[in-house]
Amino acid sequence: MTNEFHKDGSFKRQVNRFTTPFGEQPGELPVEQGRYRLLWSPACPWAHRSVIVRKLLGLQDAISLGTASPIRPNIDRVDWEFSLDPARVDPVLGVTYISEVYKNADKEYEGRPTVPVLVDVTNNQAVYNDYFKLTNYFETVWAPFHKPSAPSLYPIHLREEIDSLNELIFEDINNGVYKCGFARSQEAYEQAFDALFARLDALEERLANQRFLFGDFVTDSDIRLYATLIRFDVAYYNGFNTNRNLIREYEHLWGYLRDLYDTPGFGDTTDFDAIKKHYHLSITIFQNNGGVKILPKGPDITALLLPHNRQSLSKQVGKFLIEEN
Amino acid sequence: MTNEFHKDGSFKRQVNRFTTPFGEQPGELPVEQGRYRLLWSPACPWAHRSVIVRKLLGLQDAISLGTASPIRPNIDRVDWEFSLDPARVDPVLGVTYISEVYKNADKEYEGRPTVPVLVDVTNNQAVYNDYFKLTNYFETVWAPFHKPSAPSLYPIHLREEIDSLNELIFEDINNGVYKCGFARSQEAYEQAFDALFARLDALEERLANQRFLFGDFVTDSDIRLYATLIRFDVAYYNGFNTNRNLIREYEHLWGYLRDLYDTPGFGDTTDFDAIKKHYHLSITIFQNNGGVKILPKGPDITALLLPHNRQSLSKQVGKFLIEEN
Repeated sequence: MTNEFHKDGSFKRQVNRFTTPFGEQPGELPVEQGRYRLLWSPACPWAHRSVIVRKLLGLQDAISLGTASPIRPNIDRVDWEFSLDPARVDPVLGVTYISEVYKNADKEYEGRPTVPVLVDVTNNQAVYNDYFKLTNYFETVWAPFHKPSAPSLYPIHLREEIDSLNELIFEDINNGVYKCGFARSQEAYEQAFDALFARLDALEERLANQRFLFGDFVTDSDIRLYATLIRFDVAYYNGFNTNRNLIREYEHLWGYLRDLYDTPGFGDTTDFDAIKKHYHLSITIFQNNGGVKILPKGPDITALLLPHNRQSLSKQVGKFLIEEN
Repeated sequence: MTNEFHKDGSFKRQVNRFTTPFGEQPGELPVEQGRYRLLWSPACPWAHRSVIVRKLLGLQDAISLGTASPIRPNIDRVDWEFSLDPARVDPVLGVTYISEVYKNADKEYEGRPTVPVLVDVTNNQAVYNDYFKLTNYFETVWAPFHKPSAPSLYPIHLREEIDSLNELIFEDINNGVYKCGFARSQEAYEQAFDALFARLDALEERLANQRFLFGDFVTDSDIRLYATLIRFDVAYYNGFNTNRNLIREYEHLWGYLRDLYDTPGFGDTTDFDAIKKHYHLSITIFQNNGGVKILPKGPDITALLLPHNRQSLSKQVGKFLIEEN
């Protein structure tokens, strides 16, 4: 297994192994209906974002979906298991563990088997696991398979700004919570903690006067931010020691989160039971109760359904930019 | 060590061993200036309440105070250590561990050595460790040593009601958070969680129209409630899985807590550093970061200093009932 801890105690997420671009050039991964299966677990924020985008764009028929359990096979095995499926195998790929598709692609694969991963169904090999760029491919080269009037999540005139903001969201928030939770030194933890809340504070301000991160419409950046915010109060605040503020204590971030949660593609792909079980029973485990795993009962997620009135910030109707072709 | 876990997974706090009453009857513990030393750790809510009452009543000259470190000697040794004192010994008793005064009193003592404990300085033996009744003794038979105009924390006309409420506060809140945090079954945890928040909700309502639990003045019950509330957001919410609501999310409990915190005897005996280190580094330990202990940086306790305006609920001036003798 790759060592993901720097000697100063900070968490260094492994580099993705399967990053060949999608496209029409030789050596690129062909964009083909039915060719790939997307593997995810509803617990995982990196996979969740790709499932949200797949749904918003209507790529369900083009790319099928396999769902792994939020619970790791056991404490010592960092893998994902298809234990929710009959006979504990993915019905299309016939594998029990996600590590199998990595090994199919590279017998020598030593990294952590991660989701999301796209698997070529013609040979059951992992072909793409770069969670950072995957949604951007869905939004661009996969356009021929979008549903009619699919939203424009990555409009050309905003791409540079979206890419820049995505880097900050990744560094300080998406991966920032992991840098807090997995820190192996007090210093590394506090540095990540400060960066996380400084960024959240800045976004709180940004969202005071506009409905979404780039104005009236949802973009790729909102999906990335959502995947972490929706897990924050139920998992990270307790499990990863990100305990300066709950998201529900921020006025604008909390309204923004409720607005997105209420949007098809977001709330309906969010599985709090899976999220809580993964983080509290599988990743972080208390030693104080004799090894017994307890699932925290709070918080009350029905609060997400409270009215948010964020639509009053929109100058235009609807949440999505639909560009005519 | 006493087994404090019921077979259904619930936490059953051990029975106190040293409970001889204070008084003037034969066989009772004499009430004498300078005879006893109170041992506490600022981390411990049960000890904290006795230190608050000692200070409010002005018993500092009558009963001296020894302070143990919030950090247990090690993960396997459930004891309290005088590691903050020079040479790691209490300067009066000459002991390094609180277990020593228990063993001095009873060589066969097998229970968990707890604070608060009163030690007879003539023989260095533990003589009293009933945290539930200790403050009531301070308030009654210790009256000859109270400061002039000491507050009446346990007025005769309210004693029955105070005793009744104290039982509920103990069962659902003071010990309730431990029943959540130390539960060894999901069922035992959820039962304690529900009882805890039902009681907090009821007290929130009770405190909507009155400044303290029994009206205009602080009583013994307020001190008991304070000791748990002040530890809630910084320790229990994360460490004991009591994560339905933070205390700062309750309107009235939060104002009430700030009001008490701002009162001499409360805030000035509250040591957040000790509390956080005890609960997060010593009692509850995450396994997810390779055994490294991380101290959560949040929450921001300066919020306790925000104005509370609770005095507007008082019909009378001041926070304490002063009865003329």
